[in-house]
Amino acid sequence: MSRVAYVNGRYLPHRDAAVHIEDRGYQFADGCYEVVALRAGRFVDEELHLRRLHRSLDALEIAAPMSDAALKTVIGEVARRNGVEEGFIYLQVTRGTAPRNFTFPPDAKPSLVVTARRQRLADPRALAEGVKVITIPDIRWARPDIKSVSLLPNVLGKEKARRAGAYEAWQVDRDGNVTEGTSSNAWIVTEAGEVMTHAADQAILNGVTRLGLIRVIADSGLRLVERRFSVAEAKAAREALLTSSTNFVLPVVQIDDAVIGSGKPGPLAKKLAALYADYAASGGQDR
Amino acid sequence: MSRVAYVNGRYLPHRDAAVHIEDRGYQFADGCYEVVALRAGRFVDEELHLRRLHRSLDALEIAAPMSDAALKTVIGEVARRNGVEEGFIYLQVTRGTAPRNFTFPPDAKPSLVVTARRQRLADPRALAEGVKVITIPDIRWARPDIKSVSLLPNVLGKEKARRAGAYEAWQVDRDGNVTEGTSSNAWIVTEAGEVMTHAADQAILNGVTRLGLIRVIADSGLRLVERRFSVAEAKAAREALLTSSTNFVLPVVQIDDAVIGSGKPGPLAKKLAALYADYAASGGQDR
Repeated sequence: MSRVAYVNGRYLPHRDAAVHIEDRGYQFADGCYEVVALRAGRFVDEELHLRRLHRSLDALEIAAPMSDAALKTVIGEVARRNGVEEGFIYLQVTRGTAPRNFTFPPDAKPSLVVTARRQRLADPRALAEGVKVITIPDIRWARPDIKSVSLLPNVLGKEKARRAGAYEAWQVDRDGNVTEGTSSNAWIVTEAGEVMTHAADQAILNGVTRLGLIRVIADSGLRLVERRFSVAEAKAAREALLTSSTNFVLPVVQIDDAVIGSGKPGPLAKKLAALYADYAASGGQDR
Repeated sequence: MSRVAYVNGRYLPHRDAAVHIEDRGYQFADGCYEVVALRAGRFVDEELHLRRLHRSLDALEIAAPMSDAALKTVIGEVARRNGVEEGFIYLQVTRGTAPRNFTFPPDAKPSLVVTARRQRLADPRALAEGVKVITIPDIRWARPDIKSVSLLPNVLGKEKARRAGAYEAWQVDRDGNVTEGTSSNAWIVTEAGEVMTHAADQAILNGVTRLGLIRVIADSGLRLVERRFSVAEAKAAREALLTSSTNFVLPVVQIDDAVIGSGKPGPLAKKLAALYADYAASGGQDR
């Protein structure tokens, strides 16, 4: 758990870290966030996370709370004060605090909250044995490509997965195609040996780990196809995997009641997990 | 503005009213809310609001933070401490504070925040002249019938309306039908003299003012039809109106570029606004 949190200009003991009840993040989900992994005290793809943060802020027309240089100092400081070498930082920007009205407040200052958590990344058991996912209807709003805190459907979906004894829920659009997990991107390996994931359009969040794995795939000469795949295709796939900033690459060995491949992590999933771990350990694309 | 706010058991000066940064309302939009109008110091349809709050809490599997009797005491006390006789109270319940994880925390206690605002209801100019609305795509999640704080699309829509010089944005589903406004229900009066509004299914929030107006319509012998209507039907309507707990009944005199009727509030809209004002003044269905 975070012992020290940064909240709007101050480093506070975690228990005292609070925002005003009229912060628009609380009343309207009017904000966005990033989760950045740390490996050996070094951020993984910090630049890509900052770029995506700006993309979300721009889409929501929220001003950046500070310069990127200052933001890097803050997230570095939060990691340092919490003694996090392996884990992640969480940062959230909202439109700020103002008397409650749906329209944008004319002069609110964006809020910035940063916390850190020590956590061994990529749970070794999940990595060794693979994880199960369930499929659920994608009931989110039309802009999940914005990394907003409007996460209630994701919460409900992840809880459904937990109750089904699964690690994640893959969301399925009305045409029967998998969009992504509630907090991860979804991938399969086809019979032809292609690595396939949904294209980064408005239907999914373009994960930074997704981007990193795409780089890894390109570097290793594997074939990548960015297109929608159906639940039926996923269940018939040779292998399956998921990616996220806190999980890196995890093999998926069961989708609903369908066992994928042999029911054990496939060779390509294991290879990609190992290659991505190396990529992350070297700082990602910032290396 | 609220001078005193209730936050998790304490009445606090508004400026000191804060919630923890890991309140799930802030990180996940994992909560719901109600806005209850006061007329002459009396809540309008308090029972219907509490019933709907329970409906939202049940849908999200959030426990009630306290009994209804206790909740009534708190909202009454917040109104009293803020000297609000005409205005409204805002109450928000979230799943509580817990280390950030998408799944439901096993032992979080729901958070409760209550504020009050003095405000003359039903802006007399808007009532006398009618308001303009624009139409926008309905990009919300699939469960707007739950009054959750997952309001980012509503915020973006209302801001779009403001920039277009409009009072509200009517959201339009993929079949070209009006669902509802970003914070109000949408109504038309057809050429046949029927009063029409979207049925209370999963596509809309079943407004308490909507329910009150339905009662008023029944009592006055008018014909009500609860069904979807298209944007084309709305623009060709004889009259149009909107309802919400803070606006009561407002005539709509323009939809996008289409002037409705004579461009002035129609006779039925004016009649319904007056009848609803009487209904509200008498406490609504609790009378």
